[in-house]
Amino acid sequence: MKQMKGVVITGKNTLAVSDSCPLPEEICPTGALIRPLIWSPCTSDAHLCATGCASLPYLLGKAVGHEMCGVITQVGSDVHDFKPGDRVIVCAVMPVWRSLEAQDGHSKNRQDNMYAGKDYPDRGGSFVEEYYIRDADMNLALIPEGVTLEQAVMVPDMMCTAFEGVRQLDTEFGASVAVLGIGPVGLMAVRAAVLHGAGKVFAIGSRQVCFDVAKAYGATHLVDYHNEDYIDQIIEANGGPVDGVVLCGGSEKELSKGLKMLKNGGTLVNLSAYFSGMPIEIDPAVWGFGYGDKTIKGVGCGGGRLWMSRMAQLIACGRVEPEKMITHRFHGMERIPEAMDLFLNHDRSLIKPVIYND
Amino acid sequence: MKQMKGVVITGKNTLAVSDSCPLPEEICPTGALIRPLIWSPCTSDAHLCATGCASLPYLLGKAVGHEMCGVITQVGSDVHDFKPGDRVIVCAVMPVWRSLEAQDGHSKNRQDNMYAGKDYPDRGGSFVEEYYIRDADMNLALIPEGVTLEQAVMVPDMMCTAFEGVRQLDTEFGASVAVLGIGPVGLMAVRAAVLHGAGKVFAIGSRQVCFDVAKAYGATHLVDYHNEDYIDQIIEANGGPVDGVVLCGGSEKELSKGLKMLKNGGTLVNLSAYFSGMPIEIDPAVWGFGYGDKTIKGVGCGGGRLWMSRMAQLIACGRVEPEKMITHRFHGMERIPEAMDLFLNHDRSLIKPVIYND
Amino acid sequence: MKQMKGVVITGKNTLAVSDSCPLPEEICPTGALIRPLIWSPCTSDAHLCATGCASLPYLLGKAVGHEMCGVITQVGSDVHDFKPGDRVIVCAVMPVWRSLEAQDGHSKNRQDNMYAGKDYPDRGGSFVEEYYIRDADMNLALIPEGVTLEQAVMVPDMMCTAFEGVRQLDTEFGASVAVLGIGPVGLMAVRAAVLHGAGKVFAIGSRQVCFDVAKAYGATHLVDYHNEDYIDQIIEANGGPVDGVVLCGGSEKELSKGLKMLKNGGTLVNLSAYFSGMPIEIDPAVWGFGYGDKTIKGVGCGGGRLWMSRMAQLIACGRVEPEKMITHRFHGMERIPEAMDLFLNHDRSLIKPVIYND
Amino acid sequence: MKQMKGVVITGKNTLAVSDSCPLPEEICPTGALIRPLIWSPCTSDAHLCATGCASLPYLLGKAVGHEMCGVITQVGSDVHDFKPGDRVIVCAVMPVWRSLEAQDGHSKNRQDNMYAGKDYPDRGGSFVEEYYIRDADMNLALIPEGVTLEQAVMVPDMMCTAFEGVRQLDTEFGASVAVLGIGPVGLMAVRAAVLHGAGKVFAIGSRQVCFDVAKAYGATHLVDYHNEDYIDQIIEANGGPVDGVVLCGGSEKELSKGLKMLKNGGTLVNLSAYFSGMPIEIDPAVWGFGYGDKTIKGVGCGGGRLWMSRMAQLIACGRVEPEKMITHRFHGMERIPEAMDLFLNHDRSLIKPVIYND
Repeated sequence: MKQMKGVVITGKNTLAVSDSCPLPEEICPTGALIRPLIWSPCTSDAHLCATGCASLPYLLGKAVGHEMCGVITQVGSDVHDFKPGDRVIVCAVMPVWRSLEAQDGHSKNRQDNMYAGKDYPDRGGSFVEEYYIRDADMNLALIPEGVTLEQAVMVPDMMCTAFEGVRQLDTEFGASVAVLGIGPVGLMAVRAAVLHGAGKVFAIGSRQVCFDVAKAYGATHLVDYHNEDYIDQIIEANGGPVDGVVLCGGSEKELSKGLKMLKNGGTLVNLSAYFSGMPIEIDPAVWGFGYGDKTIKGVGCGGGRLWMSRMAQLIACGRVEPEKMITHRFHGMERIPEAMDLFLNHDRSLIKPVIYND
Repeated sequence: MKQMKGVVITGKNTLAVSDSCPLPEEICPTGALIRPLIWSPCTSDAHLCATGCASLPYLLGKAVGHEMCGVITQVGSDVHDFKPGDRVIVCAVMPVWRSLEAQDGHSKNRQDNMYAGKDYPDRGGSFVEEYYIRDADMNLALIPEGVTLEQAVMVPDMMCTAFEGVRQLDTEFGASVAVLGIGPVGLMAVRAAVLHGAGKVFAIGSRQVCFDVAKAYGATHLVDYHNEDYIDQIIEANGGPVDGVVLCGGSEKELSKGLKMLKNGGTLVNLSAYFSGMPIEIDPAVWGFGYGDKTIKGVGCGGGRLWMSRMAQLIACGRVEPEKMITHRFHGMERIPEAMDLFLNHDRSLIKPVIYND
Repeated sequence: MKQMKGVVITGKNTLAVSDSCPLPEEICPTGALIRPLIWSPCTSDAHLCATGCASLPYLLGKAVGHEMCGVITQVGSDVHDFKPGDRVIVCAVMPVWRSLEAQDGHSKNRQDNMYAGKDYPDRGGSFVEEYYIRDADMNLALIPEGVTLEQAVMVPDMMCTAFEGVRQLDTEFGASVAVLGIGPVGLMAVRAAVLHGAGKVFAIGSRQVCFDVAKAYGATHLVDYHNEDYIDQIIEANGGPVDGVVLCGGSEKELSKGLKMLKNGGTLVNLSAYFSGMPIEIDPAVWGFGYGDKTIKGVGCGGGRLWMSRMAQLIACGRVEPEKMITHRFHGMERIPEAMDLFLNHDRSLIKPVIYND
Repeated sequence: MKQMKGVVITGKNTLAVSDSCPLPEEICPTGALIRPLIWSPCTSDAHLCATGCASLPYLLGKAVGHEMCGVITQVGSDVHDFKPGDRVIVCAVMPVWRSLEAQDGHSKNRQDNMYAGKDYPDRGGSFVEEYYIRDADMNLALIPEGVTLEQAVMVPDMMCTAFEGVRQLDTEFGASVAVLGIGPVGLMAVRAAVLHGAGKVFAIGSRQVCFDVAKAYGATHLVDYHNEDYIDQIIEANGGPVDGVVLCGGSEKELSKGLKMLKNGGTLVNLSAYFSGMPIEIDPAVWGFGYGDKTIKGVGCGGGRLWMSRMAQLIACGRVEPEKMITHRFHGMERIPEAMDLFLNHDRSLIKPVIYND
């Protein structure tokens, strides 16, 4: 096993560039190696770092990262659709397409071990010099002409998660949608809602930098959740509860707030992850006492080449401008820890950072 | 306002036949009067009685009941599809079909005041001598030839609720379904699951009388929830978590149990009502930490003539034999309190009682 | 019966303003009278006129028209949500909401007689002085603040038809959509496709005036169907057959062309009407020999207050600018025949005319 | 390349056992060899034979057949879920699961070359001594305990096609369904309709042997299409047009008949294949002139391990008894031509033959 540089979590709130990330000598016939051109850290990377990988201890000392675009340097003998030199978007989830889960329409529920793990310590994230993917034809997507690296690196998680959520929200033309939490996933959800035909879109947050982007993406109402009666304000402005809610962050108590602003018969899509170990509490009254036909979906990021290609098409066709979310730009892998510190310090100017590998 | 007999809640755990239920002198053009031929009390009637109408105090002293079939005695001038003498099933929910909710596909979310209320004290349930319905053409259904009264009276709530739940569960052919709680709604959900193409159907309960009917309805596995490891047993017998769960009863903690036996990507339909005021707690771990693509639907009883007619067709075509659930038969309105006592006393031989009006 | 002015078909290719259109003395409790503020003729009006009402002979001499916005002058005693003075959009189809069809989710399949007919000669279209609608609360929609009359009059048929078609097309985010025929319904379908998340949108037509609007609405490819190989061009530009097709015009042979450019597993929505009496011929080879999972939907205009309100919301929120389609503006009812002549003469500068009632 | 016995088409209406079917020396890592235990010929095999493979000339002299169950004799190094000795159902279609079509939810639209072809003459059907499958884990299914070979061999095409059709028909509980053509696929569609909650099921055919099975499967009305007014009879018995139609055979003119008996808003699923080269003609009047919201789906057989497993579960759970369709039983590969002659001679006692490999 060769060794290479990579960014690893070394403890609570600490990241470092390591020289000893493993690089396989050989790739499998359907695999490929990708040299990163751009990376973007995510709140979930930051969460692992903040806890010192408490929930996934085997990740300690292993490379992190799952938002990356790069150039292919090598492909296996059974790769048909990509070749060295292709500039590609790399999947953040890694569906195993030959699985019963995929046959069941839930490819995301059977993922290849993209990260290191107890049973596969050689794996790791994509904040490395060279990233190994095991099913290139199925889990890479070409960056279309005219799409920049900054745009493309917003695809694997930010767009693939938010658009998957709104896809499952599946509201009608002209419907009203509330997006609760407008970090980068929430902002992409705002845009996705507009591109799923929403009329009124309520962007609920607290920071001006986010409100500005939400407005540019088509939000019609910017709502500060520090206002105690913000839920009532939304219901009044909408002329009744909203048709759909996308929940993009917050504590275990947020879900009841989302249900409160949701009409009977409506759907709430949850895009938050709950790792605190605390129960999620639903107030029966806001859930129609269990029989108000309010649906709650806990949705994960969509993956695979087709889904990423569709996201990239939206950018190429001018429907989405994800680069508007990028507030911080760095150059060089050694700057990744600095970029992560923006998350750890809850920097109020941050939406999304990128790091160019140059 | 004329007066008539009806069964009213008089206090905690007490019901009585009253002589002073109001009967309108006049009916509206789209309305009809129906003389009951058969009634069936429901756990929700019993719940009101057990609490002395604590949650809906204006119901105290008013007629209860919402499962009834009868014969039409009078129709308004604008009723086109029914006439006196017709034997009909009466809706348990009363959708207002000229409403935006109905236009939105959620007719159940806008209901006519079938019960008494603060603002309409003259209304009341159907455990009366003569029941007034305000939209006969839309909310009655003819009892098809060959369908008995006992069968028909299972339509308005037991079938309309359980089949609506399984309709929204929408599992695939050959899928596995677990029904958690096999009182009458749960038993109908077992049958509905079979008629929506389920393969393995797990009927989870505790009483032999219910297991026997579940088996007759096509349940493949009868599971006693007193076994501490019953969830693991189900997962093992199924070769993995089930494709769909229907939750038909239990406390606020039951929902997490249902989610635990459900596959990622699966749906849980809740048919329970939560009136205790306690929060419903979801353990994040059994909900895929919020991103396992597990959907939770809180589904209410479906209503209207078409839905009831479809249920009645299922009986007429021999697909459903709801009468297998009837464990107790009474005659005469004055026996209704006795029938209700079966619920209040948690009689273990009870599935569903009916009272003939003769 | 009072009499009023209205525009009637008097023979093949001839229209005239008549003084003897019937106006009811009295309206029903749920009804309303609307004084038109703006009208727009439709190709289907023109079709009736071109054939001298050959297919619907009882329409001869009766008022035509179904695209109109106006101000309410009178409401029945049972109208709750509208009052005289309200500016409203009037439904082009008139669903009967108290019907089994509406309960079945197909309200459009049971319509009130908005036009004159054999059995109801007093009815007529909306190109009159005062239009009588029988279910105001359900089939009118308020014109939202900020929405102009020109915009609003595009709602009842142009938007309600095209958006209903794309709603039923139901393509995925980033999907490719071809719109075959870009008259006003096709142009609205282009916009609807963009607002349902399409990536590439192929607008297939022949006139520059239409191409210009298609581009403004987000079409990515403008295709002239006079090019013999235009289908191959589309397939090449798309990198394969498209995900969805909306057919908005053309002869009985067009459907096979639409299927030819459609992927296996895709959907073609037909928004054309076929009145020639000729059979629609499908070439089995382009339909996957019957088993290629290509779906064909023959979709009609959606109706009702909620659907119109959602369309109006899209305008109010800036998602749709239907006024871009208006190429001709007239003033006064007596100019309606002139506007219709634009259709009858196949004026190549015409997309959509409006006539102000002033 | 080794050689083995197989049943090949030798000309118009002639089949023969050949000694020179190719058997690969080596199988791929995900592949397996299966020794047939039971075969069943299909009308599509018969069609190829009747035309002398006119439409697929490269099949001449190659092994035919796609309905087979057998025992695994060898597996590749990368097969995880099956082992020699396992009794399995073999897919009739062979989805390529690592494909964009599969990612798009249309796995059936990208199939491995199960038959011989111009470019892969070594491939062939499964009426051979030893059948080679290239993705065992994804396209085989275990025969569950209690399921007989006769039952299991009805899975790959008869059940997988009919149930896929009814899955896409997706009618509501209690809906009425007409199955037009009740050969074996039609009969399975009858059963599928019942197991998708249909009320009235109209089985339209002409032979008593088929009517008897249709009745056993739950058809409520047996209709002879030789009656000139059989469509009117169905509409009368149903109290209006039916909710759904499954078309299982007949000429290019049948589709209009199916549409004629279908309600506006309903769906017709076509399970017929059209190879005559004649256009399929739709009468606009029965298709609501193009805007009656009648949907036409041209559906192909579903494939893959999960779908076959679900079908097998339905048998194992007692929901489907496909063996009722088997009218002829043979023993030995050399009897296959005789079985095929039943199709070629339009034997009126035939529903489905099986041939045991013993």
